[in-house]
Amino acid sequence: MSKRALSITREQNFPEWYQAVVRDGDMAETSPVRGCMVIKPWGWGVWELIQAELDRRIKDTGHDNCYFPLFIPMSFIAKEAEHVEGFAKEMAVVTHHRLKNEGGKLVLDPEAKLEEPLIVRPTSETIIGDAFQRWIKSYRDLPLLINQWANVVRWEMRTRLFLRTAEFLWQEGHTAHADKDDAMAETLKMLEVYREFAENVLAMPVVPGEKPANERFPGADNTYSIEAMMQDGKALQAGTSHYLGTHFAEAQNIQFQAADGKLTYCHTTSWGVSTRLIGGVIMTHGDDDGLRLPPRIAPRQIVIVPMLRDKPEDKDLIDYCASLEKELKAQGIRVLVDLKPVKSAEKRWNWVRRGAPVIVEIGGRDAAGSNVTYMRRDALRDGDKVVSHTSPRADFVAGAKALLDGIQGKLYAEAKARLDGNIVEGFKTFDEMTGYFGAAQGDDEGGAFKGWAKVAWSKPEGTKLEAIADRLKALKLTIRNAPLAQEKADGAKCLFTGDAAKEFVLIGRAY
Amino acid sequence: MSKRALSITREQNFPEWYQAVVRDGDMAETSPVRGCMVIKPWGWGVWELIQAELDRRIKDTGHDNCYFPLFIPMSFIAKEAEHVEGFAKEMAVVTHHRLKNEGGKLVLDPEAKLEEPLIVRPTSETIIGDAFQRWIKSYRDLPLLINQWANVVRWEMRTRLFLRTAEFLWQEGHTAHADKDDAMAETLKMLEVYREFAENVLAMPVVPGEKPANERFPGADNTYSIEAMMQDGKALQAGTSHYLGTHFAEAQNIQFQAADGKLTYCHTTSWGVSTRLIGGVIMTHGDDDGLRLPPRIAPRQIVIVPMLRDKPEDKDLIDYCASLEKELKAQGIRVLVDLKPVKSAEKRWNWVRRGAPVIVEIGGRDAAGSNVTYMRRDALRDGDKVVSHTSPRADFVAGAKALLDGIQGKLYAEAKARLDGNIVEGFKTFDEMTGYFGAAQGDDEGGAFKGWAKVAWSKPEGTKLEAIADRLKALKLTIRNAPLAQEKADGAKCLFTGDAAKEFVLIGRAY
Repeated sequence: MSKRALSITREQNFPEWYQAVVRDGDMAETSPVRGCMVIKPWGWGVWELIQAELDRRIKDTGHDNCYFPLFIPMSFIAKEAEHVEGFAKEMAVVTHHRLKNEGGKLVLDPEAKLEEPLIVRPTSETIIGDAFQRWIKSYRDLPLLINQWANVVRWEMRTRLFLRTAEFLWQEGHTAHADKDDAMAETLKMLEVYREFAENVLAMPVVPGEKPANERFPGADNTYSIEAMMQDGKALQAGTSHYLGTHFAEAQNIQFQAADGKLTYCHTTSWGVSTRLIGGVIMTHGDDDGLRLPPRIAPRQIVIVPMLRDKPEDKDLIDYCASLEKELKAQGIRVLVDLKPVKSAEKRWNWVRRGAPVIVEIGGRDAAGSNVTYMRRDALRDGDKVVSHTSPRADFVAGAKALLDGIQGKLYAEAKARLDGNIVEGFKTFDEMTGYFGAAQGDDEGGAFKGWAKVAWSKPEGTKLEAIADRLKALKLTIRNAPLAQEKADGAKCLFTGDAAKEFVLIGRAY
Repeated sequence: MSKRALSITREQNFPEWYQAVVRDGDMAETSPVRGCMVIKPWGWGVWELIQAELDRRIKDTGHDNCYFPLFIPMSFIAKEAEHVEGFAKEMAVVTHHRLKNEGGKLVLDPEAKLEEPLIVRPTSETIIGDAFQRWIKSYRDLPLLINQWANVVRWEMRTRLFLRTAEFLWQEGHTAHADKDDAMAETLKMLEVYREFAENVLAMPVVPGEKPANERFPGADNTYSIEAMMQDGKALQAGTSHYLGTHFAEAQNIQFQAADGKLTYCHTTSWGVSTRLIGGVIMTHGDDDGLRLPPRIAPRQIVIVPMLRDKPEDKDLIDYCASLEKELKAQGIRVLVDLKPVKSAEKRWNWVRRGAPVIVEIGGRDAAGSNVTYMRRDALRDGDKVVSHTSPRADFVAGAKALLDGIQGKLYAEAKARLDGNIVEGFKTFDEMTGYFGAAQGDDEGGAFKGWAKVAWSKPEGTKLEAIADRLKALKLTIRNAPLAQEKADGAKCLFTGDAAKEFVLIGRAY
């Protein structure tokens, strides 16, 4: 087995490899607070770039940012019945507003018990709906298009950094419309914003589609998702967009006066993506040497390591690196000259594990010859050997933007080939599919790469759907979504019921 | 009395005027959650610009952003004794992680009671200190310079939008250093960053100085603040920077191995500013027509209102406005053409109340003559009359950046003159000062503009200081800070004790 920068490979144990990338790539760590993470500077830098890129898209599509309270009165959560069922199970509840010092020990002050408990927001439909009900008077106020960047809390029993944490960060869009058509157009527009963002910024190919009824957001009429395929073949739901019908409007009295004077309930939507995307990026692009960041979300796109030797010549090397940095910065590239008091080789491997797209190493010969020696993180090795390239400095500077674009494109193409090549079609029976996926495996076991299945189904709801979900669950499978782009299912038969099929759905194991 | 865009003037009732500016300027509103605010798009836009400008400065001084958990275990809060006293009184406490549906009613699930209550962070010294204790091993890891942007909660009994709310947003810097000198240099460096930011970005002049011992952050050795003078003469503590000595390091075992191998406690600092700054901007610059935003934090610096008349000519007007917008945007100016289906006059006054620095009104005559008619929000009226300027379009476009800079400068100069002109010196006795400030007034009463007093004092601590604080409190006064820039107090006598003075301090009423 070859030596790599991580102590574990994807093949050996994918979940442990994931943890190693997060840890050794300086992305995040667990905190002493159950299920909550500490996001470290490198991980936070990625999130800042994700925020900036997505925020621009959210604003360009006409949405305004606001900020709503962290706390939601318990009675608000109770307003929408399905919402209650979906969220009442796993929420942080504030019951007191003071501690007191009792004999040197901090205890709850019973006199400071809240009359009504407050929920730490798991999502903000109800508290934002309350504002909408005040803000919306007439059809002139519609559509109302709002977004917020916030932290939310869901009390998860089993947590994993970025992928599933008690507290996570996200954006949640909330909009109100005069009718279903307008609300549905918004729902799909934001799904498309997510797709374009995931593919062009995160270099993460996704399949946009509609979730089956049993996977809908609690209180939604329709839930859409983008699904990405991780390197272990599992699906990651990377973003969702919901058409909420008039459920929340009716529960919260969000009405508008139409042009004809009639009071009418609004149709609302909500949509969100979260810090989970970072987990998706890691499992899409990481390799056995650590993280590989798409340049568009790399806090440092080019890192320059001067090969210092504690000699007088070091000054010339540092000057050479500084002027190179300046030329690259002038092009808007995010560059860093790493001058930390650490050995050069250690720096190289730190940046490899962090996934900096281009790592430049400047030694005396490079400086003397006006050259640049660099590694591409997307093509680090030839076999086991690390590949370095040497270019005349002027060429490197002139081509730096194209180099980064090339890396972005190559990471996307790799992931796209994996997704496209691993959706299996043509199963005639459920047993055939069972045979393919094999018996249920432990969540943490690797096994052969199985990807997803694409099957025709009759789109049942209610108990019929539950029965199907149970059969799939025994194989640890779920229906991911019904892709928006698909051929007609005319003539095909439902894999589960044998009835005439209505559409195709994707099935896979999932995070 | 003249007609203004608000229904109340500063002179009539300053606190009610403040509320009117916040409300009619579309900045924020109270929420159904006690003490929590909803920040509306215009107010949020201001906060985004504040964040961007300050974040750049924080990064330029070498700090990295991170994110730490929202929740802090109760035992962490208890670690630093003074910290407990200062914060244990007013915190939101999470005690349960689940609700249950009991006969159709949501109630706490007693089986989901947390073993240890979690505190919603009122500040993050303890949870960040826990990470520092893990991250810091040797002197090579120092200084460790971290910042986070986050929401925090302090259970305030009496709240006022932006100025004092249960939940607010802030940045909190936390750093660890090898010795006191380095930590103190950091403390003062960030105070200077705040001063420069307040004056150059918010156009809000401030006095940087050290707080007296009784106003220190719980657990700090020294607390410094920037103090701004509001238009009612009261002081607003607009930012603080703390040297925490080794208190938190000892409580949390934050140690490093020095070059000589010895284990040594770090010296730590923390510093923060919050959404409170927006309240300061309002009370510094607002007038009886509403808010006046310094251009550097105005989400829209120039708003263009086409004087539409529901006629075919409207199209030409809109085109004219759109091309003007394009020319201004090309210079990096934040521009909006307001095309909402609202009467032009209403638009004008909406933007006046929101404080857009320049409001352009384009009528048919302007378009035909290639002119631009505009109002400066910093100089809206001559007496009662609204002042409009008309310029050739090319001149307006060429001069737009200078116009905005001029407005920024004029707002600062006005506020600076107010601050400099209202610090009264020369009181010989406490009674003299009492006579000046008058008897204690209700918090919500206006009264004549009193500003601050600058007095010499002997800088006592302990019970002597408490006695002084009590005497001042009877007049609703507090010591704001001892300005960093001050002349020697040699020979002067302490106004409170008659002892030899050590320095001068500022005294005033405060928010």
